[in-house]
Amino acid sequence: MIGTYQARCQQRVDTALDTLFDAPRSELQRLYQAMRYSVVNGGKRVRPLLVYAACEALGGDIEKADGAACAVELIHAYSLVHDDLPAMDDDDMRRGQPTTHIAFDEACAILAGDGLQALAFEVLADPARNPHDAQTRLAMLTSLTHAAGPAGMVGGQAIDLGSVGMKLDQQALETMHRHKTGALIEASVRLGALASGKADEASLKTLHTYAQAIGLAFQVQDDILDVESDTATLGKTQGKDQAHDKPTYPALLGLDNAKAYALELHDQALASLQAFGDAADPLRALARYIVERRN
Amino acid sequence: MIGTYQARCQQRVDTALDTLFDAPRSELQRLYQAMRYSVVNGGKRVRPLLVYAACEALGGDIEKADGAACAVELIHAYSLVHDDLPAMDDDDMRRGQPTTHIAFDEACAILAGDGLQALAFEVLADPARNPHDAQTRLAMLTSLTHAAGPAGMVGGQAIDLGSVGMKLDQQALETMHRHKTGALIEASVRLGALASGKADEASLKTLHTYAQAIGLAFQVQDDILDVESDTATLGKTQGKDQAHDKPTYPALLGLDNAKAYALELHDQALASLQAFGDAADPLRALARYIVERRN
Repeated sequence: MIGTYQARCQQRVDTALDTLFDAPRSELQRLYQAMRYSVVNGGKRVRPLLVYAACEALGGDIEKADGAACAVELIHAYSLVHDDLPAMDDDDMRRGQPTTHIAFDEACAILAGDGLQALAFEVLADPARNPHDAQTRLAMLTSLTHAAGPAGMVGGQAIDLGSVGMKLDQQALETMHRHKTGALIEASVRLGALASGKADEASLKTLHTYAQAIGLAFQVQDDILDVESDTATLGKTQGKDQAHDKPTYPALLGLDNAKAYALELHDQALASLQAFGDAADPLRALARYIVERRN
Repeated sequence: MIGTYQARCQQRVDTALDTLFDAPRSELQRLYQAMRYSVVNGGKRVRPLLVYAACEALGGDIEKADGAACAVELIHAYSLVHDDLPAMDDDDMRRGQPTTHIAFDEACAILAGDGLQALAFEVLADPARNPHDAQTRLAMLTSLTHAAGPAGMVGGQAIDLGSVGMKLDQQALETMHRHKTGALIEASVRLGALASGKADEASLKTLHTYAQAIGLAFQVQDDILDVESDTATLGKTQGKDQAHDKPTYPALLGLDNAKAYALELHDQALASLQAFGDAADPLRALARYIVERRN
């Protein structure tokens, strides 16, 4: 259970996201519907929550973090739409609903994903949606373009697709995940810190340590859930990784050791926050949520 | 023939682009190869040429336009990779070479396109590659994210796919093209003007008029070439539009009227540049090239 604070943040970002998908003209309606469908779907909003929590940890005003929260979720949503495509992971279900290429069609899903990516960066550049000085907006853009791009998330998906059926050691598995999910989680924390207007090099470094640990914990837990949960709870096809012969932590370490590893990473994340006071409680709660979630 | 000036600009942007595709680690090599393959392919570089020519028209230093030139070409290249996919236009050949999903595979092509888009914006945000103050870099990012996104290029491709087999009138056809190709051409001219460091509202507006006219002329000529040229000259499948029952200017206006319309737009473009002196000659030469090209 992630509590009232998190529910409020989810509502914040959902409200902000909802304003982005009014088609500017009728010919574009279906594309905007597909983008909205891909984003407004009851997602857990872990990355926006990290933005808000990091902003708050540094004493920032979360109202100034809405733009960053939207941007990271738009990138996440686009990556899911493309990852679900037949040529990629070929998934028909996501969060209990048909994936975008099933609900619309494949071409529309490719374009919706492309549009969501552009929109993410457009939101960050826009002072009305991301009310910060030029330097801060550029710092956010630098961080998110890098994290989302070929040296980050896109690269991780490429490594993942190239690893199917391969025996990876733990280091290779972590390299894949650091790119595929870690980079965007780290960027979410960094953007939240930047949105506080109070980030210095030391706090950015500390928060980076936190983000690295929970980013990895998130993926270990994902692998555990693929083994332990069921399709109804997951909202996506359970056992998919095994069926695709993908390398996972349970396969590599055994299930019990994978669980122990997730907890160890959780503890590392919390240790990194020692210098922060109560203001970092949302970050602590998110670390706990990440290793305790059931879907 | 587009002359020495243009050949020099092509070389400039090719040299700058070439530095972007060194994989930061061995696991990412195939993805970066696919990105390089999609970009470094003897493309005509019309959009980078527009960046340089607009910069020069305002008396700017083209060395400061390399970042913008790269960014618009990266967006163009990504759009071609995705448009060629089986679920979209399903093209096997591009510029006389196998398209990216044929030379690599479909998943790799989707990811290469995604990576190129992120990279375009990363380059614009980076003061080392785009040596301008924060406000100028943000103005470029605002313009290019909007032009590339769902209200621009991506939206145009969505309208195009939704129009196959439909009878469009001229207005509907122009709406499609203003999004699909016009938006990025207009952004290229705008980014070049911004890169000059000497753009004011009046010159931006004048150059926008120029860009609108040549953007449309470019598309009219494209449609004419699809009817008149042959596959070898085009480097892509000739007659594709007709075979796909796509609305085109020759189909709508007749071939002769389409040619007259292309020339009329060329003349409009030149008229908009009257207040500029010799510095706008490269823009004039590009307008001519656009309606005279054979591929």
